[in-house]
Amino acid sequence: MKRIAVDMDEVMADAVTEHLLRYNRDHDEVITKDDLHGKWLWDVVSIDRHPILESYLRSADFFSVLDVMPESQRVMMALQKKYEVFIATAAMEVPTSFEQKYKWLGEHFPFIPPSHIVYCGDKGILRADYLIDDNPRQLRRFEGEGILYSAPHNVNVTGYRRVKDWLDVEELFLG
Amino acid sequence: MKRIAVDMDEVMADAVTEHLLRYNRDHDEVITKDDLHGKWLWDVVSIDRHPILESYLRSADFFSVLDVMPESQRVMMALQKKYEVFIATAAMEVPTSFEQKYKWLGEHFPFIPPSHIVYCGDKGILRADYLIDDNPRQLRRFEGEGILYSAPHNVNVTGYRRVKDWLDVEELFLG
Repeated sequence: MKRIAVDMDEVMADAVTEHLLRYNRDHDEVITKDDLHGKWLWDVVSIDRHPILESYLRSADFFSVLDVMPESQRVMMALQKKYEVFIATAAMEVPTSFEQKYKWLGEHFPFIPPSHIVYCGDKGILRADYLIDDNPRQLRRFEGEGILYSAPHNVNVTGYRRVKDWLDVEELFLG
Repeated sequence: MKRIAVDMDEVMADAVTEHLLRYNRDHDEVITKDDLHGKWLWDVVSIDRHPILESYLRSADFFSVLDVMPESQRVMMALQKKYEVFIATAAMEVPTSFEQKYKWLGEHFPFIPPSHIVYCGDKGILRADYLIDDNPRQLRRFEGEGILYSAPHNVNVTGYRRVKDWLDVEELFLG
């Protein structure tokens, strides 16, 4: 059975929408996803405000309130019948996210056993056939085939098979 | 550069001593490590008291107070010069341990970057050349070479190269 590792933020969980919402609300700005084409939020917000962006991620509730990406629950459940599915998130970058992410997964993806959840920092440590991730830095380190999940920041990245949403994931792996 | 994954509990951190201490203290018993030869603590304590054993692990401080295994800091630091070293702990079994383990590592092994810490449940997900672990269940799942770190419960386990302490680890990998 082939093994698929799946990233959380921007793949299963819509983190950038929440990040934009909090930043815009507190600063009376109207940055949209369209403004992020080819850029991370960190590239658009001035460097003196980066500690503020960081503080949102480190808050007690950020990762627990994220919306689930459309169709991801249904497709993940279907993937589990044909593949060994692991969740792999770079949670080590934000230690305050550990418990929030665990609860979020239990709430929205209760069919994924805890034994198949991985918190790491460098996804080069994963032994899997595929990694679905929006972050090209992680895909470069991964030794299986990296599948690039589209996000505003990665629109110009090439060199990987790309999926634009979970219907594309379904088509690629089950289609 | 070859990659070594290193388990925490019973390899870097002396969890069983703390577990015995709490259980004996609260129940006026004198179970020792000698009583655990070939057995887990769970095999020695009657099943109706397993929830108590579990509650110690799930307490707010259990994993933060564990003693460091002798020589492990010095040898780990030396290993890092010749190998890529990752910490790999089955923390998913005890979600309350996430933050405690992270702080414990930062305190006792500050030279290990967070990017090289992995929380998982099934160590078959690790891509590494070696895994040093006391748990034969994890070594069976791991696809590189498993190195069995001696612990009372695994004295009768065969089929792996065995290290009895960190001086043995040093001898095996740095020779």
